[in-house]
Amino acid sequence: MYKVGLIRVVTQQPPLLEAHADILKKAYPMLDITSRCIEGQSDGVHDKESENLAIPKIISLARQFYEDGMEAVIISCAGDPALDVLRADLPIPVIGAGRSCASAAAGSKGLIGVIGITEGAPPAFREILGDRIVDDTLPEGVICTLDLLTEKGRQSVLARAMSQKQMGAEAIAFACTGLSTIGIAPYIEESVGVPVFDAVLCEGAFACLALSNHVYKE
Amino acid sequence: MYKVGLIRVVTQQPPLLEAHADILKKAYPMLDITSRCIEGQSDGVHDKESENLAIPKIISLARQFYEDGMEAVIISCAGDPALDVLRADLPIPVIGAGRSCASAAAGSKGLIGVIGITEGAPPAFREILGDRIVDDTLPEGVICTLDLLTEKGRQSVLARAMSQKQMGAEAIAFACTGLSTIGIAPYIEESVGVPVFDAVLCEGAFACLALSNHVYKE
Repeated sequence: MYKVGLIRVVTQQPPLLEAHADILKKAYPMLDITSRCIEGQSDGVHDKESENLAIPKIISLARQFYEDGMEAVIISCAGDPALDVLRADLPIPVIGAGRSCASAAAGSKGLIGVIGITEGAPPAFREILGDRIVDDTLPEGVICTLDLLTEKGRQSVLARAMSQKQMGAEAIAFACTGLSTIGIAPYIEESVGVPVFDAVLCEGAFACLALSNHVYKE
Repeated sequence: MYKVGLIRVVTQQPPLLEAHADILKKAYPMLDITSRCIEGQSDGVHDKESENLAIPKIISLARQFYEDGMEAVIISCAGDPALDVLRADLPIPVIGAGRSCASAAAGSKGLIGVIGITEGAPPAFREILGDRIVDDTLPEGVICTLDLLTEKGRQSVLARAMSQKQMGAEAIAFACTGLSTIGIAPYIEESVGVPVFDAVLCEGAFACLALSNHVYKE
């Protein structure tokens, strides 16, 4: 088992606090995950202001996880806030949902639709996927992660995915981990018929990869 | 446990046949792997001729794995021979070592050194990493996967990695799964000081990812 600290960038109490950890424990049973969230941001990170507010809190939580003996830290946000700073700062792997999802999607062929909650795809998606992003406009009526929890939010995401397929997308990448919280990936795959890269499942796969080198030292 | 069929593109008997499966089972315990290899190619796939010879054999093994009830197939070769054909042909995930390794490496920052056994990086590396490849010249004296098993081969790979770092590489991606067989990734990380993307560990992470969507349906 790998001890992994997971940072939620929306202020939540259990059981919602554990939403991403619950997904990851089922998908990757070797991850032993402890979840903590930033304080005072009940609508999460969804624009530059909320991101700037979150960054010092994320850095503090990550350092705490390292001091507590975690073997890796996951920043469970597609904007990858504080990722570069923490990668330079900590001697353990630091995984961001955005870089993980964008690079996993880079392995698919053709154009890619990006669905998130920010105006324009987050930095890792633009950097890694570049011209392959066919569309990154917001689902109608979705401004923050909480909007995804409503039935209207779900329908809006499905409609966006269908539009992106019609625009030529051969795969869809999630640029918000709130889309993992609502578990919509398999519904898009079934109803729209394209593979979906789910940001939480991708961060888990990259955490496993980052921790797997030990096999050669046993 | 996920039932996964793994195709070796070098003709081998147990226990060498199981070399990649042994690595993957340790790294990703939820993978239940069955290994099979192509026949009549004891020096593996290392140029266009050997690749063309291997492709129909790989297609046949992959179809057999599907008929046997495997949930995914891994083509454990960085050249990704037959990958596109099989992805179009089979209704289960088909994972290639090359695409997995190149896309995992795409998530790192800066220039990337590619180390393999073919003249020029394999297609997935050129397609996904493009201009970020700082060097893909062969380790001296290495022509096929068997050369990696010698002490001279190991030293030659370490020297190539050191040169690539001096050329500006901030990460190294393996373009041959034979480099996994010899378990050299952590030695490069220690002696050269850059992160290494190991093609077998990457194919395992992508297999786990491809099979993980089920968590939303439980």
